[in-house]
Amino acid sequence: MKLMQLYASLKSELQAIEDQMALTVTSDLPLLSETSLHLLKAGGKRIRPVLVLLAGKFGDYSLETLKKVAVPLELIHMATLVHDDVIDDADTRRGQLTVKSKWDNRIAMFTGDYIYAKALTVVTDLEQPRIHQILSGTIVQVCIGEMEQIRDFFNVDQSVRNYLRRIRRKTALLIAISCQLGAVATGAPAAISSALYRFGYNLGMNFQIMDDLLDLCGTEKAIGKPPGSDLRQGNITLPVLYALQEDALRGRLLAEIEAIKAGDGRSDSSAAVKLVRSSRGIREAERMADRYIAKALRALDTLPDIPAKRNLADIARFVAKRSY
Amino acid sequence: MKLMQLYASLKSELQAIEDQMALTVTSDLPLLSETSLHLLKAGGKRIRPVLVLLAGKFGDYSLETLKKVAVPLELIHMATLVHDDVIDDADTRRGQLTVKSKWDNRIAMFTGDYIYAKALTVVTDLEQPRIHQILSGTIVQVCIGEMEQIRDFFNVDQSVRNYLRRIRRKTALLIAISCQLGAVATGAPAAISSALYRFGYNLGMNFQIMDDLLDLCGTEKAIGKPPGSDLRQGNITLPVLYALQEDALRGRLLAEIEAIKAGDGRSDSSAAVKLVRSSRGIREAERMADRYIAKALRALDTLPDIPAKRNLADIARFVAKRSY
Repeated sequence: MKLMQLYASLKSELQAIEDQMALTVTSDLPLLSETSLHLLKAGGKRIRPVLVLLAGKFGDYSLETLKKVAVPLELIHMATLVHDDVIDDADTRRGQLTVKSKWDNRIAMFTGDYIYAKALTVVTDLEQPRIHQILSGTIVQVCIGEMEQIRDFFNVDQSVRNYLRRIRRKTALLIAISCQLGAVATGAPAAISSALYRFGYNLGMNFQIMDDLLDLCGTEKAIGKPPGSDLRQGNITLPVLYALQEDALRGRLLAEIEAIKAGDGRSDSSAAVKLVRSSRGIREAERMADRYIAKALRALDTLPDIPAKRNLADIARFVAKRSY
Repeated sequence: MKLMQLYASLKSELQAIEDQMALTVTSDLPLLSETSLHLLKAGGKRIRPVLVLLAGKFGDYSLETLKKVAVPLELIHMATLVHDDVIDDADTRRGQLTVKSKWDNRIAMFTGDYIYAKALTVVTDLEQPRIHQILSGTIVQVCIGEMEQIRDFFNVDQSVRNYLRRIRRKTALLIAISCQLGAVATGAPAAISSALYRFGYNLGMNFQIMDDLLDLCGTEKAIGKPPGSDLRQGNITLPVLYALQEDALRGRLLAEIEAIKAGDGRSDSSAAVKLVRSSRGIREAERMADRYIAKALRALDTLPDIPAKRNLADIARFVAKRSY
């Protein structure tokens, strides 16, 4: 089944989730509804809701229950995006003005806080303490990941392990628990929810590495912003770390990164991007991404053979595809 | 019993809460522990933990249980302070540099997010869904209140009702549920937890009005910053709204507020402060504050006559005292 068909087959469920998200962030304060809905309207792949729905097929499927997992997870993801845009000083996301750009930083901060708080009111309808524990523990990890990213800006001496730990927190865990909680909420056996967690975790790791590769190798049209924006911001990603390990390149790449840093974000990163592209870094990062996808697919092995299992595999293969 | 004695009698419990707060925010990321503990070390009245402990006396008192309410409530309060300081561009709080000032805005934003998320991991230990529902619903209101405050900056046409609704959300509700949840967590009857909620709500309303009065009438030494900082920021508080109702003053006060606004926060608000002090606004705001304290004390009437009841009344009378 192609991915488009999968989305089509989940259309009414995804619409119900979309409606619930809009309803959740609507408040009697027009400004907050406006900033929140602005974000919602920008759309997105809604990968977390899709994973929640598919994971729910392994338990006692109930859209009402799954909505109470999918809506908060996607809203929490959105809240982190709003705060990220403040940090990154980003003007556009998904082709739309960011909240911080259309309004201002302080409005973006409280919009993020608000969406996040609203997300929690939805999940508290579910009376399984374990769900709340998993969710709040994961949010803590996401925050630590965000902070690690700030700490590691322009740190050219960080290890690959460092990078992996950071993207695990920043990205992979929320995708992992999207799979896990869909199963937990619908009462699937523990063995199934942990296999789904492992699937989501490895998928999330691949997802972030691919995203970081795209920022270096994609066209401006495909990325929606000029390539190399991670580097401009000081975010040293996996391909760059690998490139820095090449003796023939290291000196020049360090000098370029130093120049970007000195330029305080306004510098051009295209020379650095070119160096990384010419290095083995791209190939090695791709190999790492492939390993995660292989692990994700292996995590599915023990799952019962229902259509959702094949759908998850399709998603993994799609995410892993190079779009540059 | 004097307030000092009350704090002394709760010393070991408050210390246990303090320790748990420090433990909760400590992470394996030194930067985050540092920013969070920086805030913790600045101290504070810990009014929310005190209220939680006293409310717990009306139920089946358990420090272990009450800690899981008091620690998150105080941490959530702290998280909002960190975000507030970003918005207010505040350099000091309680005589210490703010996180945004000692580090920077983006670190302050994620420190707030992190403390908030950590707070939630503590409360998820409690398996009463109602607690989570009350807490998350209140946090939403706090966020809406913060946003209303931004929206209403320099809005001289807002009504008193507007102001009261905003401080209800921004301040009073979190104090209300400190009382309520202490009772709910220890299994006190519903009539008791709602009486305690009403007590806390009215106490919180008084608390914010007194705080707003202090900002206008206090000395720089008592406030820790020059008087009139609310006005400098554009925050139109109750005494100012009342002063604006005086025909003889309105024109001059409007002109002063307009000048502050034009000065973009750098203006001197002392002339406006002087006008408000000379108005009936101070007296009327004090009367409103007194009414809330009377209501708070009345809410205690139906409670069983245990020492904690007198302690709560002492707190109310103390909070209501003018310190200017």
